Amino acid sequence: MDSLRQHILKYIQLDVQQLDEVLSHFTPINFKKKDYVLNSGSVCHYDYYILSGALKLSQINATSGSEEVLSLAITDWWITDLDSFRNQKPAHTTIQAEQDTEVLALSREAFNSVCSQFPQMEKYFRTMTEKHLISWMNRVYMRNSLSAEERLEHFIRSYPEHYEIFPRYLIASYLGMSAEMLSKLRARKR
Amino acid sequence: MDSLRQHILKYIQLDVQQLDEVLSHFTPINFKKKDYVLNSGSVCHYDYYILSGALKLSQINATSGSEEVLSLAITDWWITDLDSFRNQKPAHTTIQAEQDTEVLALSREAFNSVCSQFPQMEKYFRTMTEKHLISWMNRVYMRNSLSAEERLEHFIRSYPEHYEIFPRYLIASYLGMSAEMLSKLRARKR
Repeated sequence: MDSLRQHILKYIQLDVQQLDEVLSHFTPINFKKKDYVLNSGSVCHYDYYILSGALKLSQINATSGSEEVLSLAITDWWITDLDSFRNQKPAHTTIQAEQDTEVLALSREAFNSVCSQFPQMEKYFRTMTEKHLISWMNRVYMRNSLSAEERLEHFIRSYPEHYEIFPRYLIASYLGMSAEMLSKLRARKR
Repeated sequence: MDSLRQHILKYIQLDVQQLDEVLSHFTPINFKKKDYVLNSGSVCHYDYYILSGALKLSQINATSGSEEVLSLAITDWWITDLDSFRNQKPAHTTIQAEQDTEVLALSREAFNSVCSQFPQMEKYFRTMTEKHLISWMNRVYMRNSLSAEERLEHFIRSYPEHYEIFPRYLIASYLGMSAEMLSKLRARKR
């Protein structure tokens, strides 16, 4: 739980006792590689903080029938289907483990308790939500404004760890290009 | 300023004096229809709360050269280029008035002052950021999973006022279809 402790302290001030109380609201869960953390159509009951491993949030594109990767999350990242988690309605997305993954899960009720007990946590979650929104905006920006080559460079520069951790075909999907195109661009870079 | 007062009180509790102090940090600005609120490449210095009128956030698609509408905001909505506003770096988007528009503008420094003086405001902004993120997720979901007809129906159901206020070609762009397709779908509905 130490990494979440450190992560929270990067953004807000809490003393040891307060942090212990905040952390007592989380439930540790382990997922095996390829386990489904959330199935599309189910309600997302948790917001997940990743202690180790890697999770992918995706959606099936109805026209092409292929999987579209919306978010790739690694150690120290939060991931959830926010609309489903916040409004407790069926999710449009799927979350799947891409490695054996250890998370700390925060239920909706626990989220509300933490925020009402420790109003400082609002700032922490506001900041996390902002980062999350910015990553969505960047994904759209990349697709609108950058060539495939520029998108790959932008991704490697912004998320070097992700680039090492996730299989290439998932990164290709996240970047809106085929796996073949990504291979070709990588070959050209060498 | 009364509508922002009411809007804040929907989400958090502040007394009259606290609200007055919060509101003292905002600057009223008027834009004429077609005025640019933010030019792509400039730093976005404000988060805008719309008192009346309508603003559009968009980007030029480098491949097609056409404008891609990313967000449509009306009375009681917040709008900004979050990455630019938060990190004070050049924006990738443009914000333009689609009607004569009155806003209350909150600068980055004012935002920080408001949050440190009134920590309850963190909850308000956390909630606004969540709603904003959910609308981005929904835009991606619609494009992935719904037919053009379903997207239009989803939009009219979700944002009936937007549908009345914004020109059809902007709604078409937001929904990822041509203006002709939108007209055809509307004709079919009659």
